[in-house]
Amino acid sequence: MMKDRIRIGMVGGGDGAFIGAVHRMAARLDGEFQLVAGAFSADAERSRASGAALGIEPARAYADWQAMLSAEAQRADGIEAVVIVTPNHLHARVARDCLAAGVHVLCDKPLATTLDEARELARIARASACLFGVTYTYSGYPLVRHARALVAAGEIGEIRSVQVRYAQDWLSEAIETSGNKQAAWRSDPALAGEGGAIADIGTHAYHLARYVSGLDAQALLADLTNAVPGRRVDDNAHVLLRYANGARGMLWASQTSPGNANNLELAIYGSRGGLSWRQETPDELWFAPLGDNTRVIRRGDKSLSPAAVKATRVPMGHPEGYLEAFANLYADFAAAVHAYRAGERGANGAGASTFPTIEDGLDGMRFVHTALASSREGGVWLPLRP
Amino acid sequence: MMKDRIRIGMVGGGDGAFIGAVHRMAARLDGEFQLVAGAFSADAERSRASGAALGIEPARAYADWQAMLSAEAQRADGIEAVVIVTPNHLHARVARDCLAAGVHVLCDKPLATTLDEARELARIARASACLFGVTYTYSGYPLVRHARALVAAGEIGEIRSVQVRYAQDWLSEAIETSGNKQAAWRSDPALAGEGGAIADIGTHAYHLARYVSGLDAQALLADLTNAVPGRRVDDNAHVLLRYANGARGMLWASQTSPGNANNLELAIYGSRGGLSWRQETPDELWFAPLGDNTRVIRRGDKSLSPAAVKATRVPMGHPEGYLEAFANLYADFAAAVHAYRAGERGANGAGASTFPTIEDGLDGMRFVHTALASSREGGVWLPLRP
Amino acid sequence: MMKDRIRIGMVGGGDGAFIGAVHRMAARLDGEFQLVAGAFSADAERSRASGAALGIEPARAYADWQAMLSAEAQRADGIEAVVIVTPNHLHARVARDCLAAGVHVLCDKPLATTLDEARELARIARASACLFGVTYTYSGYPLVRHARALVAAGEIGEIRSVQVRYAQDWLSEAIETSGNKQAAWRSDPALAGEGGAIADIGTHAYHLARYVSGLDAQALLADLTNAVPGRRVDDNAHVLLRYANGARGMLWASQTSPGNANNLELAIYGSRGGLSWRQETPDELWFAPLGDNTRVIRRGDKSLSPAAVKATRVPMGHPEGYLEAFANLYADFAAAVHAYRAGERGANGAGASTFPTIEDGLDGMRFVHTALASSREGGVWLPLRP
Amino acid sequence: MMKDRIRIGMVGGGDGAFIGAVHRMAARLDGEFQLVAGAFSADAERSRASGAALGIEPARAYADWQAMLSAEAQRADGIEAVVIVTPNHLHARVARDCLAAGVHVLCDKPLATTLDEARELARIARASACLFGVTYTYSGYPLVRHARALVAAGEIGEIRSVQVRYAQDWLSEAIETSGNKQAAWRSDPALAGEGGAIADIGTHAYHLARYVSGLDAQALLADLTNAVPGRRVDDNAHVLLRYANGARGMLWASQTSPGNANNLELAIYGSRGGLSWRQETPDELWFAPLGDNTRVIRRGDKSLSPAAVKATRVPMGHPEGYLEAFANLYADFAAAVHAYRAGERGANGAGASTFPTIEDGLDGMRFVHTALASSREGGVWLPLRP
Repeated sequence: MMKDRIRIGMVGGGDGAFIGAVHRMAARLDGEFQLVAGAFSADAERSRASGAALGIEPARAYADWQAMLSAEAQRADGIEAVVIVTPNHLHARVARDCLAAGVHVLCDKPLATTLDEARELARIARASACLFGVTYTYSGYPLVRHARALVAAGEIGEIRSVQVRYAQDWLSEAIETSGNKQAAWRSDPALAGEGGAIADIGTHAYHLARYVSGLDAQALLADLTNAVPGRRVDDNAHVLLRYANGARGMLWASQTSPGNANNLELAIYGSRGGLSWRQETPDELWFAPLGDNTRVIRRGDKSLSPAAVKATRVPMGHPEGYLEAFANLYADFAAAVHAYRAGERGANGAGASTFPTIEDGLDGMRFVHTALASSREGGVWLPLRP
Repeated sequence: MMKDRIRIGMVGGGDGAFIGAVHRMAARLDGEFQLVAGAFSADAERSRASGAALGIEPARAYADWQAMLSAEAQRADGIEAVVIVTPNHLHARVARDCLAAGVHVLCDKPLATTLDEARELARIARASACLFGVTYTYSGYPLVRHARALVAAGEIGEIRSVQVRYAQDWLSEAIETSGNKQAAWRSDPALAGEGGAIADIGTHAYHLARYVSGLDAQALLADLTNAVPGRRVDDNAHVLLRYANGARGMLWASQTSPGNANNLELAIYGSRGGLSWRQETPDELWFAPLGDNTRVIRRGDKSLSPAAVKATRVPMGHPEGYLEAFANLYADFAAAVHAYRAGERGANGAGASTFPTIEDGLDGMRFVHTALASSREGGVWLPLRP
Repeated sequence: MMKDRIRIGMVGGGDGAFIGAVHRMAARLDGEFQLVAGAFSADAERSRASGAALGIEPARAYADWQAMLSAEAQRADGIEAVVIVTPNHLHARVARDCLAAGVHVLCDKPLATTLDEARELARIARASACLFGVTYTYSGYPLVRHARALVAAGEIGEIRSVQVRYAQDWLSEAIETSGNKQAAWRSDPALAGEGGAIADIGTHAYHLARYVSGLDAQALLADLTNAVPGRRVDDNAHVLLRYANGARGMLWASQTSPGNANNLELAIYGSRGGLSWRQETPDELWFAPLGDNTRVIRRGDKSLSPAAVKATRVPMGHPEGYLEAFANLYADFAAAVHAYRAGERGANGAGASTFPTIEDGLDGMRFVHTALASSREGGVWLPLRP
Repeated sequence: MMKDRIRIGMVGGGDGAFIGAVHRMAARLDGEFQLVAGAFSADAERSRASGAALGIEPARAYADWQAMLSAEAQRADGIEAVVIVTPNHLHARVARDCLAAGVHVLCDKPLATTLDEARELARIARASACLFGVTYTYSGYPLVRHARALVAAGEIGEIRSVQVRYAQDWLSEAIETSGNKQAAWRSDPALAGEGGAIADIGTHAYHLARYVSGLDAQALLADLTNAVPGRRVDDNAHVLLRYANGARGMLWASQTSPGNANNLELAIYGSRGGLSWRQETPDELWFAPLGDNTRVIRRGDKSLSPAAVKATRVPMGHPEGYLEAFANLYADFAAAVHAYRAGERGANGAGASTFPTIEDGLDGMRFVHTALASSREGGVWLPLRP
C-alpha cells in the first residue's frame, strides 16, 4: 500500500512571508507530510493565490482558519494537523480552535502575546488528546542534541556557568517605519506582543540553553533597551540567570548589532569540561574535557549519541543547516502523529517528546514576561517559578 | 488549477544507497517534482520494497529501467524525466535508453566509465531533444555562483593561479575489503571505472574550478597513487594544470587524508584580487581586492549577484548546505523542463544552462581519462583538448 | 654617542615568577631599557641568584626594595624607573616608596588591594613629578589601538552595546591547595585583595572595553560566584554595565571555564557598525559597517591608524602576540621617560598618555570594589562614579 | 659573576632593512646576545648612523665586513659570531670570510645565489670548527617542533601525502619598478639569485615540510611562472614531490596571490592520522587521529613534547608569533655557542643541531636549483639527490 502522508493545513504563510516558506520546506524534506489545505492570508484572494502557487486544490485554500477547520472536518481526507505561522497575536486563538476541532497543532513561537493567554492555552492543550508542538528550531540541530546528551551523561560534570548569545543586525535602523513588513509587525506590540528582541530571539536563546543544560533558571534579572529611537519594543536585552544548583547564566539577545546575521552561540561550562556551539557553523561542536585537548566533534562522527545520529541526513563534511534542523522537528512531530494514529496517547507532555511542546512554549512566555517585568522595575532579580 | 509537478522516475537509489536519498530530498525541497516511479534495485523485490517505503504505487516500482521506460510510456501521467543514481558503470546505458524513450535525464557524475562511452553518449544527447543534466553538486552553492559572477565581472582581474583541493578520509583504510558497500563498488574498476579518487571527487574539484574561473585547462600532469596497499584504484591525486592565458592550476584530490571529511576548497587569484571558498562552510566567500581589506561575503548579502540570490532560500545567518545546493540543480532542471513543456528547445547545450549538462559531464570524463594517462606514463604533460 | 638606555630596577619577579619574566622580555625587545638592579625576592639569597642569572651586578641585586631605592640613589648611573611585579598586596607600598625616591614607576595591575589604598596612592602620584604606568597589557595590541581609533572617528556611530568576555580555565580545580604558587597567592585575599577573577582578569576586560569604547560606565551590577568549593575568592563574574549615553554592557570574567586559555574578546556595536576582536588571534580585527560586507582588518594593513602602525614591528602575516603588546606599553613608557629627561612634565595624567596611567589603575580598582559590593548585596545596581 | 652574553656583529641590516631588525629583536628577547659591532651598510656613513641608533660604539660600526672581522679579531672583547642579513648575493662571501676568521655564522637564507657557491661554502663550513646556522624561521615555532615530534613518534603512521603552501600577495604588482627596495633586490637575479618566489619563500616551505615530515624528497617537478609582466624572476611556483617511501607532496609558493599576507600552511597525512598547521595562527596544531575526533593542540598544553615546551615563553592563550619563533633559533644557537665555549665540538652537522645548519641551507639551494631546472625544461621530473 502507498505510504500514507500526514495531511496538514497551514494558517498564515502567504506570499512574502518568511517563516511560512521555511515550514513548508521543512515539511517536504523527508516526504512525511502533504500540505493539502491552508488559510494563508486574511485576504481571501491572496489566500487562494498562495494556495494555487503551492499546488493546493482551490477549494481547500480558505479565507480563514475557522472556515478551514469546519470544511476539512467534513472530509474523509481532511487535515490531521495545522501549522500556525501567523503573526504572534493570532497564535493562541488559532491554536485553541484547532484543539477544539481535534486537530494537532504545530505552532511557531512565541506561543502567545501574553503569559496569561499562554497559560490559558496550555490548560486547554493539556486537557486535549491532540499533539502540540512549538517550533523552537535550534533544538533540531543534531549537535545541539548531542551536546544535550553529553551534558546528561555527565561529560562536563556539574554545570557552573551558561553563556548564551543571540545577535542579529537587521533591526539596526528603524526599518519598521519604511515599509519592511517583517519589521513592522514584529515591532508592533499589538501584533507581536510586548517583547521585541527578548521575545523574538531571546526566547530561542533561553530555550536552547535550557534544552542543552537541562537546567531551569530560578531567577533572572533583565536590562532591556531599545537602541533605535522611536522603536516601541526592546531591541537589545541583557539578562542574568540563576540556577538551583548555584550555577549562573548570561543571556544576550540583540537585533541591533551590526555584523551579526543570526549569531546564536551557546557555551556551557562544568566542573569537568566545557562545550560550545555556534548556529552559523552548526556542524561542529567543541568539547573541552578539563585538562585535555579540545575536541572538534562533527555531525556524522560515528561516536555521536543516537539522538544526534537520528537527526542527520547526509555524511560529515556535507553541511546541513537551518532547514534540516527545522525538518528534524517535523520528523519528530511526524513520528508522534504516527504513534497517535496507532492509538498511542500521552506523548504530549513536556519531556515526553523529542520536539518542543506547549510546556516549552509556556516556559518561553514565562521567561519573556519575567524579563520584561524585571527590566521595567529597573533591572531587579525576579523569580522564574510559576 | 493545481500546480503541475514534474513527474520523475529514479534508477538506482534503493534502500541503503547514499546518493539516491540525497537526490530525493533535493527533489522534494521546493515541491517542483513528484517521484512517481522507480527501478530502485536490480533485485525486483528490493525495488518494490524501496518503492513502497517511498510512497510509490506498487505497479510503478519496476524491476529494471527498461521495464520502467516502456510501461511509463504507456501512461498519460508517465514520467517526464529520469534520475540516474546507479553505480557508475550503468550511467551511460541507462541514460541512452532514457533519451531513446524521449525522457529527460538527470544523471549523477561521472557520466560513464570510459571517455569513449561518454563521447558516444554525448553524441546521442546532442542529437536528442531531451534535457540532460549532470549533478556536479558544488556548482549549486549560491556563493559558488556569486564567485563565478565576480570573476566574470572582472573583479579579480586576469586570472593567474587556481588552487583547488578536495580531501576526504573515509578510504584511509581498506574498508572495501571489509563489507563497506560504498567503498566496494567505488574501488572496483568494473563498477566505478578506472579512476578512484580522481574520478569520484577529483572530477568535482575540476568542475568547480572550471565553473568559477571560466577557464578550460589546456594541459595537465598527474601523479596518482594508491596509498592503501592492495587498492585497485588511485586514492590520492596530485594534478598540475595549464590554462590558455598562461595561468596555472593545482588540484589535489584525496580520500586518504585523516581529518578531512568532505573538504573541498577553491581559491582563485588574479591581477586585481583573490577569492576563496570552502564547501564545509559554504555560506561565506572571502574576497580580497588587491590592496584593500578582505571582505567576508555572506549568502544573503543584498549585494549578491542575481544568480546567487535566486539560489538562496533562507536569510543570511540561517545556514544552508549540501542539500540546498543539490536542490538548486533540481530547481534549475525544473525551470528547464517547464520551458521545454512550453515549447522551448535548445536549452541543452553547454553554457546555455544554469545546471551542468552533458558537456560538463564529458569534460569531466576527459579530465579523468587524461589524468590517468598522464600518471600511467610517469607523470607527464598531456593536452586536454578534444 | 652611544644611545643611552633607560636604567630600570625590578621589584619581585624572581625565579619562577610568571609576570616578571614577561616584563623583562617586553623591556628587552626594542633595546630601550637596561635592567641594572633588582629586589627580585623577599629572600635575599634568592634575589641575588635571580640577579646573577639575569646578568645583574651582584651589588645591585638587593634584599628589598627600600635597600635598592636608597643604594641606587647614591649612584650616578642609578635606576631611573622601577618595575613592580610583586604579588598585589605590595604594589601600593612599593610604588609609594619609589615616588618618594623620585623614581618613575611601571606597576602591574591591580594598583592595590583596596580602593582606599589605591586612592591614597593616586593622590601621591598626582602630586609627584614622576611617571606612573600600569600594565594593562591588552591596550598594547596594535589592533586594539586601531579599534579605539575607529570608534573615536565615528566609524561605528553612536555606541549602543559593549560585550566583553575574559575566560580562562586554569582555576577550574582547587589547585591553590595543591602547591600551585600562582594560584595560591591569587586566591588568598591577604595577598591578592578581595577580588578573585573580577580583579585578576575582570579588570583587564573592563579596561579594554573602556579603552576602545571611550565610554565610562556609570553603574554596574555584579553576580560573582566561586564555582570551586572552598575557594576564598570569586572565580566567575557576571557583570552588567550602564553608560551615560544609554548604551549597555555585559562583562563576563571566569577562571573556571574549561577550554578557555586566555580568551579575552571584545565586541562593540554602534548605530553605524560593529567591531570585534579576540586576544588569542590578535592580528585580526573584524569591522562590520552596517549594510556592507564585514572587513577583516589585519595588523600591517596600510590603512591602519598611526597609533596602530607605530605599535607594530613585523609585517602583516608575521604574527605578533602578547610579548609584543606588552613591549608596546614599554615603548610608550620609554618615550615618556625620554620626554621627561628632555624636561617635559605633565605627561602623567590620564588621557595625556598612550600607556595606561595611575588613573586607569584607580579606575580598575573602583570597578573591582563596586562589583564586589554589588554582588555582596545580592546583585544590585551601584553607581561607579567617584 | 655577571652573565657573559654572546658578542655578535651584524653584516647588513642598516636603516630601512626588514630582516635585520627582526634578527636584532630575536637576539634581544632572551638576553643571551649583545650586539656590539656591525657593518650595517656598504655606505660607511649609513653604517655609522645605524650603529649609533643601535647603541653601538662608533668605533665598532664598520664600513665593511672585512674591516669588522680584522678589527674585532684584535679585541679581547671582540665578536664571537656574525649575523648575515645582506641581500642574497653576499651571503656566501661574507660567511666564508667569517669562517676564515674563526667566527661563528648565523646566516639568513638562502645560503647563496647558486648551488655551486653553496656547495663550496658547505665544504668550507664542514672543515671549520665554527658553528653555522641558517635562519629557516618557521622551524622555530613550538608547535612545528611538536608536529615533528608527533610524526617521529609514529602518531600519524606511515606518511602518505605532504601538502605545503606559502602564499603572499605583496608582489602582485610590479612594485620593483616603482621604488620598493625590498622588491627591487629580490627580483634582481644579480642580487637575489635566479629564483624568485621559489627561493624567497618556496625554500621555507620546502624546509618546513622536510623538518616536520622527516622525509627527503627524491624527485621533483616544477612549473614556475611570473605572473607580473616584465618581472625577471618567478613569482608563482607549483611543485610536485616524490618521496622514497612512495609518499607524494605538493608545494605551492606564490607572491602574487591577493589576500595572502604570509600564509604558510603545512598538512601531513599518514596511515594513522593527519596534522595541519598554519603560520598565521601558529599557536594551534590540528591533529586528527584516524577514526577519532580532531584535537586542537595548543602551545602550552601540558602534553607537549619537550622540544615544544622548551621553545615556549608565555602560557597558552597568550599568543606568541614570528619574533618568538625567530628567537627560538637564536636560543638554540646560543646554547650551541655556550657548548662551544665549554669546549664541545662537532655540533655543527645536520641533525646534530636543533637549529637549521648549513646542511639545511645547502638542501634548500639544491631544491631551488632543481626546481628552476625542471621548470626550464618544461616541467619534468628531476632527481633531488646530490
